[in-house]
Formats: sequence, C-alpha cells, structure tokens
Amino acid sequence: MVDLRFLCDQARLGERAGLSQRRGIYLALREAIADGRLPAGSVLPATRSLACELSVARNSLIYAYEQLAAEGYVQATRQGTVVRAWARASLAQASAGGSKAGQETPSHGQTSRRAGAWQRFRSPDDDLKPFMPGVPAMDALPLQAWRKAMDRAARCLRGSDLGYRDARGEPELRQAIATYVQASRGVRCHADQVVVTQGTQDSLNLCAQLLADVGDLAWIEHPGYGGARVALSLAGLQLQPITVDAEGMAVPPAWWNERPPRLIYLTPSHQYPLGSVLTWPRRMSLIDGAWRCGAWILEDDYDSEFRHDGPPLAAMQGLVDDAPVVYLGTFSKSLFPALRLGYMVLPQGLMDRLAPSINALVRGGRPQSQLALAEFINEGAFTRHLRRMRRLYWERQQALREAWRVHWPWPSALLGGECGMHLTVAGCPLSDQVLADEALKQGLSPRPLSAYSTGGVEGFEGLVLGYANVPAEDMARYVAHLARVTSGLLRASSTEKTAHHWPADQRSRPS
Amino acid sequence: MVDLRFLCDQARLGERAGLSQRRGIYLALREAIADGRLPAGSVLPATRSLACELSVARNSLIYAYEQLAAEGYVQATRQGTVVRAWARASLAQASAGGSKAGQETPSHGQTSRRAGAWQRFRSPDDDLKPFMPGVPAMDALPLQAWRKAMDRAARCLRGSDLGYRDARGEPELRQAIATYVQASRGVRCHADQVVVTQGTQDSLNLCAQLLADVGDLAWIEHPGYGGARVALSLAGLQLQPITVDAEGMAVPPAWWNERPPRLIYLTPSHQYPLGSVLTWPRRMSLIDGAWRCGAWILEDDYDSEFRHDGPPLAAMQGLVDDAPVVYLGTFSKSLFPALRLGYMVLPQGLMDRLAPSINALVRGGRPQSQLALAEFINEGAFTRHLRRMRRLYWERQQALREAWRVHWPWPSALLGGECGMHLTVAGCPLSDQVLADEALKQGLSPRPLSAYSTGGVEGFEGLVLGYANVPAEDMARYVAHLARVTSGLLRASSTEKTAHHWPADQRSRPS
Repeated sequence: MVDLRFLCDQARLGERAGLSQRRGIYLALREAIADGRLPAGSVLPATRSLACELSVARNSLIYAYEQLAAEGYVQATRQGTVVRAWARASLAQASAGGSKAGQETPSHGQTSRRAGAWQRFRSPDDDLKPFMPGVPAMDALPLQAWRKAMDRAARCLRGSDLGYRDARGEPELRQAIATYVQASRGVRCHADQVVVTQGTQDSLNLCAQLLADVGDLAWIEHPGYGGARVALSLAGLQLQPITVDAEGMAVPPAWWNERPPRLIYLTPSHQYPLGSVLTWPRRMSLIDGAWRCGAWILEDDYDSEFRHDGPPLAAMQGLVDDAPVVYLGTFSKSLFPALRLGYMVLPQGLMDRLAPSINALVRGGRPQSQLALAEFINEGAFTRHLRRMRRLYWERQQALREAWRVHWPWPSALLGGECGMHLTVAGCPLSDQVLADEALKQGLSPRPLSAYSTGGVEGFEGLVLGYANVPAEDMARYVAHLARVTSGLLRASSTEKTAHHWPADQRSRPS
Repeated sequence: MVDLRFLCDQARLGERAGLSQRRGIYLALREAIADGRLPAGSVLPATRSLACELSVARNSLIYAYEQLAAEGYVQATRQGTVVRAWARASLAQASAGGSKAGQETPSHGQTSRRAGAWQRFRSPDDDLKPFMPGVPAMDALPLQAWRKAMDRAARCLRGSDLGYRDARGEPELRQAIATYVQASRGVRCHADQVVVTQGTQDSLNLCAQLLADVGDLAWIEHPGYGGARVALSLAGLQLQPITVDAEGMAVPPAWWNERPPRLIYLTPSHQYPLGSVLTWPRRMSLIDGAWRCGAWILEDDYDSEFRHDGPPLAAMQGLVDDAPVVYLGTFSKSLFPALRLGYMVLPQGLMDRLAPSINALVRGGRPQSQLALAEFINEGAFTRHLRRMRRLYWERQQALREAWRVHWPWPSALLGGECGMHLTVAGCPLSDQVLADEALKQGLSPRPLSAYSTGGVEGFEGLVLGYANVPAEDMARYVAHLARVTSGLLRASSTEKTAHHWPADQRSRPS
C-alpha cells in the first residue's frame, strides 16, 4: 500500500483554487502517477478505508479512481486498483536501433522539405502599404451593398442549412458565376461546371491534386506567379519554367515531345507579372498541344475584369468547344481578398468524373457568404462595382505613369497595364531585392521582379508596382519617396550596377 | 485582298441582337479567322476603303482591328493587317512522336490516380437524414446569439480590414481558442501557437504538407477516419494502418524500428469510429516514441467536448511539456459544419519555424466570422451551448441505446459512447455496405463500419450511428425502420451470413 496522505493537502489546495474536492483529488493522483511518486504496479488503497483515513468523501475518491481508469492511468484488478506501466520497451528498441542510438535529445521537430522551400513571412500590414500588387482599392469597397446582401442571406438561412454543404458550392452562386463568366469573359459553361473555392490558391491546390500525380510535369510561366509554384510543387509536381515574351509563354516546339506536360499554368489575359497578352496563335497551339498530350491548361484569369483598352479579352476557355482548360477566377481582386471566394470552371466531362473526388476532398459550407455573393452579382451590384473600379484603376495607372516619368530618373520601361492592377518596371538600378526590402522598411511595398523567377534572377530584375490601392493624388509623393530610397541605397553602396540583367528584347517593348 | 462583304450582314445581325456595330464587326472577323474563312496570311483591307465599301463607320473597323491585334489574331505589318498563323508544327511533332502517334482523338481528360482513389459522392441532403455520424443537432443551434455576434463583428470592420489577413487567423480568435483549450482540454499553449483553419480537413492537409514529404510514412488508426486517409495520401504519404483495440491504437513495438513514422494520426479522446479512449500508458509510449524517431502526432480531438461520463479527458498534447503533438480542433461539431472554422495548436518551436511557410501556403481572410466566433467564445455563449448540447446528446444516446435494445433483434454490441455524437454497432447480419446503401434509399444515413477500414473489410463490419441530430422521441421509430430495412434485405437474399467478420475480443467489450 502506498502513502497517499499528500492527497489531503493537495485536495485542500485545489479547493482553495476553486476546484471541487473530487477534481482536486483526481488531479493530485494523476500528477503523482505521471511524475513517478506513484510508480507502476502500486496498488491504491480501497476507497472506503482511504476516505476514512484522509477524512474526505468516499464519492470523491470513487470519482477520481474512475476518471483515472477511464484515462488508463490505473486498472481495476483482483488485487485492487493498480497503477499501470507504460511500455518503455518499444522505445528502448527504437533508441538502440538505427542511426538514432545514443541521441539524448534527438533533433526533433523536422518540418517538410517542401514547406521549407516556401518562405514568405509577410504581415497583412505590408499589403496595405503603397505598391503592393494584387490588392484592390480598399478605400472604394461597396461595403454598404455587401452588408445588405449578407443580412438578407442571413435571414434566408435556417438551422438545417448550416450542415455540410455541397462541396462544389451553393447552386445559386454557381449559377450566378456561370452567367457572369459567359457574358463578360466568353467562357462556355453552365452552372454545373462551376466549383466554388476559397480563392485561387485553393483552386490551384485542388487542380494539382485532382489532375496530376506526384512526379508529373507542370509547365509554368517564367517569370510567374509564386502562388502557382507553391501549389504545384507542394502537390509533388515537377516544375518546368517556360520563358515569357511579349506574346506570352513561348513554348519551344520540341518540348511537346521531350517534356510533355500534365498541367500548364497560364495567365493568358494579362501575364503575371510582365503584363503581356497571350496571342491567339499561341493560345491555339497550347490548346491543341494540351489536347494531344492529354494535358490540362489552368487558365488563371485573376484580374482581366479591369481591362483599360477595351472590353475584356475573351477567355482561352471559350476559344474552342470543350477546350482542355480549367478556368480559374477569384473575387479577391474584383471584390476583396478577405472574402475568400473564388471559382473554377471545369469541362463538363471532367466535372462528371471529378465530382465524387471533390466531395471526398472538400467540405462545403459558408452558405451565407455564397448566397450574399450570388445576390450581389444577380442584382447588378457586382457589375456596377467593376465599372467603377475600372475607371478608378485607369486613373490610378495614369497617375503612376506620370509620376514615374517625372520622379524616376533611372532607365526603365513600364510593362503591361492593358488591364489589371499593376505595372511592371523592367530594370532596376540596384538589386531589386535589396531595394524592395529597404522600401518595405520605409513604408512602401513594391515587389522585386526577381521574386517571380523560378530559376534565380537571371534575366529579370525590376519592380512590380500595384497601383489599385494607391489614390491618384498620392502617387507622385510615393514614387518620389521610392526614388529617394533608391538614391540613398545607391549612395550607400557607391557601386551602381551597369548591367540590370534585363534582356534587350524586353526593353524595346512599349511602355 | 479578301472578300469581307459578309461582315456587313453579320454586323447588322449583331446590332439586332443588341451589340454595337464595332463589337459585331469584331466578333464576325474573329469568327472568320477562327473557322478558317480568313486563312493565315490573308491581308485585311485598309479600314478607310473597307468602311466605304461596306458603309460602316471607319471607327468601328479600327476598333475591331485593334482588338484583334491585342488578342493576337492579326498583326500590323508593312503589307497591312495580316491574319496570323498558329504553329501546327509543334503539334505535328507531338503527334508523330512517342506512343501518341496516330491517335485522332486521344484519351484526353485524365484525372489523377490519387483523386480517383477517393470517391465519396454524397449529397448534403444525406447528412440530414437520421444516423449520419458527425452532424451536430441542427435543430438546436444557437442561431440568434450567433447572428448577433456576426452583426457586431460586421460593425467593427472597416474597408481596410478586408484585405489579405494573417494566415494564422485573427489575433482575437487565436487568443479565445487558446484560453478555451487550456481551460477545457488541458492543452498547454498560448495564442501564438494557434493556427485558425477552415476545419479539420484543412488542418490535416496543412499538416501533411508542412510536416512530411512525399513517400514518408504515416501511421493511422484502423479502422479510422476516412478524411485523414484522404489528406495524408493526397499529400503523397504512405499509410501504415495500425489496428485499434479497446485501449486505442495498438502499436506493435518492433514497428518503431521497422516502420518508423513521420506522422501519427490519432483520435485519442474518443477513437473514431470505435469509441475507445487511448490509455495513458499508450499515450506516453506514443509521445516518447514520436520524440525519439522525430515524428509528429496529430491529435484529432473532434468531439471530446461532449463527454457524458464526467469532465472531458485531458488532451494528449498537455501530458508532458513540449509534447511532439499538433492538437486539432474544430467548430464543425461544437457549433455547425457550414461555419468552416477549425484550428491547430502547434508546439511553439514548430510554430516559429512554420510561420513563414504557412504564410506562403495559406491566404488569410474571413475576419467577420473569426471575430464573431471570438466574441461568441469570450462572452460565454459557446460554453453555454456546449453545456446544453452535452445534456441533449446524452438524452439522445440513451434513447438510441433503449431503441436498439427494443427494436434490433440481431446480435450486436454498441461500442463507444463515453463522449461524442455517435455509437458504433459491432456486427451486422448482412453486408454493412449493402445495408447502408438500402437504408440511404429509405431515408436513413447509418455509415457502414467497413467504410472506415483501410485494407478492406476484414475484421470490421457494423454500423456507425450518429445520434446527435436525431430527436430522442423519434429514435425508436428510426431504429425500427432500420430493422425493417434489414429484415427486408435478409428475406430477399435468404442467405443470412453466419460470420459477421467481427473478432471475438471486440465482442466482449461492454455495450
């Protein structure tokens, strides 16, 4: 029999700390077992005699013993309630065997190599600093209209609507998206082909897992969108960067044979970040090539709503019937990022095959946001907002171009800008990474173009400047500030680079 | 020069359909190029002469030519505006080379093998049928309180709060979760260790990608939760099923050496689906073993809030300091599934290393729901709801046990039930899959126990019965209905199985 008089004191301490007597006794016993004061094999006294000895309620002891038994600390046997042992045997073996022998504190806590490959620590505050690409005009959101739509959606929902929902999204939203992309983007689809996602990153993760296996090859744009590289490589795919020129991704013809892709990731309407539009001949070649080698094209149409030079360009998905294209859209740019809603449009045949897998992988939900968005689109508020933003972004882009002309003294070319929310500066008078780091410290968030490269910085240094969230009247001030930061760095280093790692053919593009 | 007189007719047709003249001309030209009526190399007439000839506004033609040039259909050259060719050369090569030669309609549209391995097509309607496991009481949600919290959160948010958010979640919610799991589950943590996710499926996907690489070994429970198998195998991990007995996962000691895991997926508080509690000796062995071989334990604590036999059991995460455990919780069971909010608690050292990767993989957002949930927890509504549900689920479980005793004539044992929202029936008088399929047709959603197996059905046939969403007063009616379905199937087959594929040691467990 073991000495359990400590129980009394601990139980009283526990009572003073607001615990019940039985809870205090249970915790004290558990601690004693865990730290070895009650070693394995000890027999606990019978509750009746112990209750007498300690002057505690027997029920408290019974509770404590039962709780300990439920958690497997003790076991009721014929000998009484016995403290259990935990098997160190297996661990001794593990420690003796293999390379880990003798390690007292093993190098625990490994993370995966694939996670380690992607290190982007950025606070959301940085997103709101001027020039962060991909952030819409946060000062011009249609908050009132959106809240009204959310309120109306809340009133429509009953408790039974709050279980797991269709993993492909609410039917109302799928229909609204289908109608919208048909009308505005020339996408050929009906509602059943639409899958609502949490945004493009989610869409890309799903596509990578649903459409390709570990080791398969994915063609990506170089330079290109980092989020696509993350999703595809996390899913275990091999990445094949393909250089982008003024007509978009320039596929070396032989690669269709030599390195046939399983997936092709593209931003055809407005290449991210260089801004080129994938030309019709290249679109047709890619579609036909994908068809022949059984590949899928992922068409990321992230910001084509905001075309400044005319109506939006038609999507690749709608160029031919039943194109091997998964069309990806998002409301992060057209409404606001925190909404976390995007969508994919799959070819009908693909949807038929994938629906069961999507149900296995994805848990559907968030009917309030989805129904609100459906209403927001259906009653025209979405289109009105896009129209306002198109004008606003055009003004802001013009302001950026003018400010750049006036306040940026170094040679550079502004690429892109036919649509969207950013301009890309080709060329940088010093390391674009160094400049971006220092700018961030001083309150500006331009992104270094080299960060969009897959194989290092070769050929592409510059700055990607988001203008959508910068008021036109502030633009000159911020560009002048960026120029001062640059001058400061150049003076500090006194080693202005002469080569800017920018290929000649890119420099000649119109700014 | 080509004959473009068809343009006139088409433009007029377009006008009748509500298009502008310029848009009609553009579309007609694009179509003619796409279908080959304007073959590659054709030179389009100068806009001035063509405008005259067709009696259309020259500006419309200029618009159309520019739009076509922007999309790369035509090119301005010294010879004039020329229709571009798209390179079939690459495709001819692709078609000639390799195994795809001669295939006119290639077997396009492959999906991934990994996606094909998971086929669960279930409509959300099925979830609301009686006996679906994992669905909380949808008739007892705290809708009013939740809506108030959502409204208050909406009023707090300004436009600038709707950009990309911290990928780990809103600070207020992370703090509320940390406080809650410390107090109620004995988890040792502070707010900085918490990552808010879209639910357990999302948490599992992240853990699989962040903590393990393709080909690494993951130990899982057999039988066990299908969602974990999906997430781990989609991430490219090898699965090692380990059989569960009355004390939880029973690891063969030699396996620590022979098949050392990188991840160990566990439901220690209430094994899903068998209901056993992982005993303290096994918990300690697993923690120590994981430590020594550098593995991470994923502790899925999906429904331990609802413990019926006493206060919730302490989480494995809090058993020792800095345990190699990632603790996973969800609000899908404790509130409602459509909320899509869950969380992970990482060891501090792991969080320090993973934060940048989480920022690269995850886009943060949904501040309204997160702030509403934080308030819901902080002001006590969450605990009040859990208390009500604990009572309700206890009543419903008792009603199920009683109904089963009265209305189910075949030999069976009810496993689990110390906490949670389901009971597991060991044994089934016919194929559990056949029974579940027929029951679903007749309006009931019990899940076949064999569906929880990894390596086929050996050893485990039975039914998993969710009772949380079935009113106590309806229980007898539904069990009787299920019994009638079973009788009907047995009569139809006239071949009642004598062996139920249930091992003897499981039968002896208390029901």
